[in-house]
Amino acid sequence: MTTERISSVTNARVKRLVRLRDRRHRDDEGMFVVEGYRAVRRMLDSDVMPTELYIAPEWFQGTNETAMVDEVAGRGVEVVELGRDAFAKCAYRDRPDGLLAVVAQSHRTLSDLDLGPEPFVLVVEAIEKPGNLGTILRSADAAGVGAVLVCDQVTDMFNPNVVRSSTGVLFRIPVVVASSGEVETFLRAQNIRTVATTPDAALLYTDATLTGPLAVLMGSEQFGLSEFWLAAAHEQVRIPMAGQADSLNVAMATIVTLFEAVRQRSAG
Amino acid sequence: MTTERISSVTNARVKRLVRLRDRRHRDDEGMFVVEGYRAVRRMLDSDVMPTELYIAPEWFQGTNETAMVDEVAGRGVEVVELGRDAFAKCAYRDRPDGLLAVVAQSHRTLSDLDLGPEPFVLVVEAIEKPGNLGTILRSADAAGVGAVLVCDQVTDMFNPNVVRSSTGVLFRIPVVVASSGEVETFLRAQNIRTVATTPDAALLYTDATLTGPLAVLMGSEQFGLSEFWLAAAHEQVRIPMAGQADSLNVAMATIVTLFEAVRQRSAG
Repeated sequence: MTTERISSVTNARVKRLVRLRDRRHRDDEGMFVVEGYRAVRRMLDSDVMPTELYIAPEWFQGTNETAMVDEVAGRGVEVVELGRDAFAKCAYRDRPDGLLAVVAQSHRTLSDLDLGPEPFVLVVEAIEKPGNLGTILRSADAAGVGAVLVCDQVTDMFNPNVVRSSTGVLFRIPVVVASSGEVETFLRAQNIRTVATTPDAALLYTDATLTGPLAVLMGSEQFGLSEFWLAAAHEQVRIPMAGQADSLNVAMATIVTLFEAVRQRSAG
Repeated sequence: MTTERISSVTNARVKRLVRLRDRRHRDDEGMFVVEGYRAVRRMLDSDVMPTELYIAPEWFQGTNETAMVDEVAGRGVEVVELGRDAFAKCAYRDRPDGLLAVVAQSHRTLSDLDLGPEPFVLVVEAIEKPGNLGTILRSADAAGVGAVLVCDQVTDMFNPNVVRSSTGVLFRIPVVVASSGEVETFLRAQNIRTVATTPDAALLYTDATLTGPLAVLMGSEQFGLSEFWLAAAHEQVRIPMAGQADSLNVAMATIVTLFEAVRQRSAG
């Protein structure tokens, strides 16, 4: 099943896996790491194959791991076994489960997108926290958004915490990273209406029309949407807040807005 | 401003602060810890005073800390200064900001609640992850929920990660911990309609009536609502899912449901 077994924590492969935590190394190599049974399963189910699968049977938590390893090995992927300590050194999670895949980064462009007859997209600007970005991807998937357009990227999509918090959605939903200018030009060319969320808007999000070709725009945690997007948007909306001003973070505001759009779009 | 300065990491007060991370010690003492400027500020703004405030000026990140320390000391609270290492040992956060308050736990009962003429409450059952519980409290605050009823508690409300992820909402919103039986009896006595969220329901949450006296019921991460609550609820509803089955976690499902209730209630 495996070609070798590495027990030394100073092995070159172990060191490389540790280096892939850094964006610079990820970008240099064009690779990233997917850890844990659930995320690797989702990746395989989305027809994405890793270049290598690192396993540590001593860390396995369930009974399905061996079948997965066989499946991956059967597809010609290199499987490398690590000892307990070596795996713990590479693992990003506090409680590793003995599975870690190295995968090629895939980058889509705006022209790759096929948004169908009634586009429904999410645009996020300069999101900083990997956990928020991952949660936003999950929300977009749950709401049936056709693509997530990430403008003026701060956190890269291949950050281990984005991968983890997206629970594999990263492999399901089309994500395009581009500048705000490119995205705005694209949306305008496609006649997609843009709705910006901002606490300063007069219109409630539930009173706005969220049917038809739609892009929901969400700004960064600290600054909200930029002047560029506030000026470019066809409409500005706000979510009513009963409690303290910052009770809704960007991930929460995103899911609330997306599901109101789902409600309107399925009613229409 | 302060009565003493502790630099030893083995000081008895330092050890006690570390012990308060454990629920057993929190419950034995009836105390818990609130860390960081924002959370302490929210606590003070909610007229809750700590019994002690531990400070480490070497960790201060802003310019408002001194005024807060003076305010607290002026109210007769004991202020204790810690050295850099001693504070780091007590701090729960990776990047401490030099403020840590010890506060008495406060426990409300169902009979303490005043839910007004049109009750809107959230019932959560056996939530396990502190981060989810904190996020749920934020959502409840943002949606203007009158009380959160925590049934069959698994994670205590004074867990440091609940306190942190609630961003101080813990001090704003009435929270009652009780058994499911007690809560169900209370809701029935108050003529509050119960709406259970479960993926197996036929009715969409947007097609249910969420106006009037309402309790939204949310189950645990792993098991959803218990048979008890599914049987007791007046109605079962589901959130439509476009993506993979578990894209919505309990915190996300909660905020989506609560804001649909807000929409219906403000339209009515």
